[in-house]
Amino acid sequence: MNRLPTVVIGIDFGTLSGRALVVATEDGTELGTAVHEYRHGVVERQLPGGGAALKPQWALQVPQDWRDVLVHAVPAALAAAGVTPEQVIGIGTDFTACTVLPVTSAGVPLCELDDLRDRPHAYPKLWKHHAAQPHADRINALAAARGEGWLARYGGKISSEWQFAKGLQLLEEDPEVYRRADRWIEAADWIIWELCGTETRNLCTAGYKGIFQDGHYPSREFLEALNPDFGDFVGKLEHPLSAMGERAGGLSARAAAWMGLPEGVAVAIGNVDAHVTSVAAGAIDPGQMLAVMGTSTCHIINGPALAEVPGMCGAVRDGVIPGLWGYEAGQSGVGDIFAWFVESGLPEEYQTEARERGLSGHELLSEKAAKQPVGQHGLVALDWHGGNRSVLVDHDLSGVLIGATLATRPEEVYRALLEATAFGTRTIIDAFEGSGVRVDELIVAGGLLRSSFLMQIYADIIQRPLSIIGSAQGPALGSAIHAAVAAGAYPDLHAASATMARVHRNVYQPDPNHAATYDQLYAIYTELHDHFGRGGTNALHRLHALRNGSDNTDAS
Amino acid sequence: MNRLPTVVIGIDFGTLSGRALVVATEDGTELGTAVHEYRHGVVERQLPGGGAALKPQWALQVPQDWRDVLVHAVPAALAAAGVTPEQVIGIGTDFTACTVLPVTSAGVPLCELDDLRDRPHAYPKLWKHHAAQPHADRINALAAARGEGWLARYGGKISSEWQFAKGLQLLEEDPEVYRRADRWIEAADWIIWELCGTETRNLCTAGYKGIFQDGHYPSREFLEALNPDFGDFVGKLEHPLSAMGERAGGLSARAAAWMGLPEGVAVAIGNVDAHVTSVAAGAIDPGQMLAVMGTSTCHIINGPALAEVPGMCGAVRDGVIPGLWGYEAGQSGVGDIFAWFVESGLPEEYQTEARERGLSGHELLSEKAAKQPVGQHGLVALDWHGGNRSVLVDHDLSGVLIGATLATRPEEVYRALLEATAFGTRTIIDAFEGSGVRVDELIVAGGLLRSSFLMQIYADIIQRPLSIIGSAQGPALGSAIHAAVAAGAYPDLHAASATMARVHRNVYQPDPNHAATYDQLYAIYTELHDHFGRGGTNALHRLHALRNGSDNTDAS
Repeated sequence: MNRLPTVVIGIDFGTLSGRALVVATEDGTELGTAVHEYRHGVVERQLPGGGAALKPQWALQVPQDWRDVLVHAVPAALAAAGVTPEQVIGIGTDFTACTVLPVTSAGVPLCELDDLRDRPHAYPKLWKHHAAQPHADRINALAAARGEGWLARYGGKISSEWQFAKGLQLLEEDPEVYRRADRWIEAADWIIWELCGTETRNLCTAGYKGIFQDGHYPSREFLEALNPDFGDFVGKLEHPLSAMGERAGGLSARAAAWMGLPEGVAVAIGNVDAHVTSVAAGAIDPGQMLAVMGTSTCHIINGPALAEVPGMCGAVRDGVIPGLWGYEAGQSGVGDIFAWFVESGLPEEYQTEARERGLSGHELLSEKAAKQPVGQHGLVALDWHGGNRSVLVDHDLSGVLIGATLATRPEEVYRALLEATAFGTRTIIDAFEGSGVRVDELIVAGGLLRSSFLMQIYADIIQRPLSIIGSAQGPALGSAIHAAVAAGAYPDLHAASATMARVHRNVYQPDPNHAATYDQLYAIYTELHDHFGRGGTNALHRLHALRNGSDNTDAS
Repeated sequence: MNRLPTVVIGIDFGTLSGRALVVATEDGTELGTAVHEYRHGVVERQLPGGGAALKPQWALQVPQDWRDVLVHAVPAALAAAGVTPEQVIGIGTDFTACTVLPVTSAGVPLCELDDLRDRPHAYPKLWKHHAAQPHADRINALAAARGEGWLARYGGKISSEWQFAKGLQLLEEDPEVYRRADRWIEAADWIIWELCGTETRNLCTAGYKGIFQDGHYPSREFLEALNPDFGDFVGKLEHPLSAMGERAGGLSARAAAWMGLPEGVAVAIGNVDAHVTSVAAGAIDPGQMLAVMGTSTCHIINGPALAEVPGMCGAVRDGVIPGLWGYEAGQSGVGDIFAWFVESGLPEEYQTEARERGLSGHELLSEKAAKQPVGQHGLVALDWHGGNRSVLVDHDLSGVLIGATLATRPEEVYRALLEATAFGTRTIIDAFEGSGVRVDELIVAGGLLRSSFLMQIYADIIQRPLSIIGSAQGPALGSAIHAAVAAGAYPDLHAASATMARVHRNVYQPDPNHAATYDQLYAIYTELHDHFGRGGTNALHRLHALRNGSDNTDAS
């Protein structure tokens, strides 16, 4: 009798939960999935068990919550798939990033040591821990002053979310924990250590979150200029870097027991949720831009050569696909802007109509907005309600809406906000193309692809065809594809993606009848973008200061 | 036994109804009032009785509706006041303006002639008839090209609402009606003709709506350059002009019979609703600016000398108070912007809370907004949702809002809109003071004075004390005061106003703690104002063209 077909497991560690997905190695068919919610979720107020209080903008996680995904979600996904543990030939993972933690030389999280359990800095700092902004500001200022070559690879600014900013905060706020951190490691790599029992480091997080460029991290001189005691920081990071899709090792007995899997199953090296989605969406060749569209949007595109694109989040050689330069850009606010409007700006009659007709607020507004000719709302918005990641890299910006009249209806404002995010994407595409990185097609993953109205607006505004990922679990499928490569089932990511990816090509085509009007609106968007974002006025920064100001404590 | 105390009657002809108010001559006490709704309201679609259809932007009225106010409201007001007809010594009136109609040399409205009853141009054109914009544009362009001295008295542009634009439209669209119009007369003057049986013309409408400056109307050469047949137009207007507060004549037997009043009662010459309110609010001395705040705001202030203030609506010698230059300015959208926001932007939870607590949407939003320190919303808006009357005189502008974040709440946007209208008022005040017209105090009339939250914002932003009219019927009380002067009960408007006006002085004082923050917000408002309104960008005009465009008829 034939052997049973093999499967691979992709495990996607998100912000609030982790998901395991069991996939057929031979063709990428998704066989079963399961989700495990983190018991502690995001720790923002107080350490677990009534521990120390946290300051504003802190966001931590608890490593045991991640292990619990292995313990609970993997067996549940196998059961749902109806496959036996023996069919599993590989495991791939992806993580939020930069989510980073201090560990011992044996890989033990410092927050799991008895004497450090009540020290906030001993815990993993989640990607959205934003308390290291002053440290990031100093890093950026010094890098600019010294003319550090790596700065341009990150659009001129590194983020407060990344390894160096969070590491500098650790050093300066809790030197003892800093000293006892033998290693400062991405959760993406730490989970591999847990699975295999040996430390690895992946090229993706090292490049995008760890300022690893041209074969090295920032220099000791640079770090000592930030703080004399920071000079040894790279020692906590350094390790040979592994290529994406490489085998990190075999499943340890300990981890195998957690999941009920055989020891020695191939484990792919760590990865990042957005970047790993590229292979699942078939967005790996130059010209194919992946847009993971949810509350925010992350753009990933590969190119054959280095281009320093103004305002991108990062350019990393081999960062996504070995042999190519991987580029990342982003929009801080997309779906969350739409959600904000529906929550705070939808009048009662609309809510009643939506309820009676069984529509969401988004569906009702889209239906109403679709009845109007392009441009007839006479509105243009800037999509900066959550700041601007690319191409301005300025988190203190805010939203703008111009053109409202007494006849302006909610669906018109809603549509203007949808269009604004598409103009934001076009701005990013224009920046890439202006720097020599070709963008031929947009391949969309993430929850927003469900809105065909939004997708058509994007196709019309960026004037390129839109393809749509065919999986609801893009990151987990991408991790499974990496697992298949790590297990040797495919020679490389290209081959695995060609068979296992799920993408519906060219679902939305730009409507040429809309191009001229959208060009007019985009011209206004660009004017506003440059006026409010590039120094025409600093009004948005002054308003930001007022919002956060201490000089206006008198209510009226 | 003593004679009964005398009374005067003020009659305010509004857009949808007319109101009669009976007032004690000796002290201004309001004794009784009654309202009569116009049977035909505003005629915008079709002439009465299934007559001709009207084009967009037309707005007509029916003269008999105005007579019916005399017939119904005046006796009802007398009854409500409990006074006898013999106590009435004077009648004053005020009207919307420019509301203008073609009449015969006997004062008969052409629309009441059998053969013209179905001709739209035979009817009175209400102030908000906006179909003469192309004619106004030509008048403005020609006046600018010829350097007509009167143009600067109107901030550089006359309105499509005024006598000459509407008259030129009449000539060019229905020459026969134009020819048969012996007189082209403001409704404000026509109602006096009805009351007294003789034609009079008042200085106020002649100056503010009829381009009467320095003793004459625009020249025959100017008019013939517009259209060779328009040269005789002034002949339809010319008549000795009467000063404000003057006696137009005595009540005719015919009109006396309508109202059940004695023949011969003194009738004051015609007046305009906003301007007549000045004497009711005690806003007649230099430095005292009246703001009639409703859906829009009209500002009236008197000064001792001529100043040509950029962007005002009109400067007219003796236009409000004999011996002074009367200045008018305005904001196109005020209360209607707030109403638009409450109607289209109030989420269900707010509407539910307002209902449960018995508050209006405005009250609920004001209460929530008041809890926040000044400036903490981080928002600035431009109040141009209905265009900008002063100081830009540009009706194609539209609203702007900057500074929104994902945390922005409806009450914050609402407050930003309230503040924007106050910044608009401050911009007007700054223009007056910059041209040498002193503004020491704002005296508020109109429905918006009921919002103490709004009033305090105005006091804080304009940094001047706010006084509040003490009557809910400002125009009718003002008309009654004019009646008292026309009847000889007072030597002049000053003396009558000193006794009969109703004003609560300095009800709101600027809070010095708010001045610095509001100055910062106002600086941003001014930046936006000049950027979007004075040529930094023509984006709002391009959006206006798109809103009204014919090149985008394909829905999406």
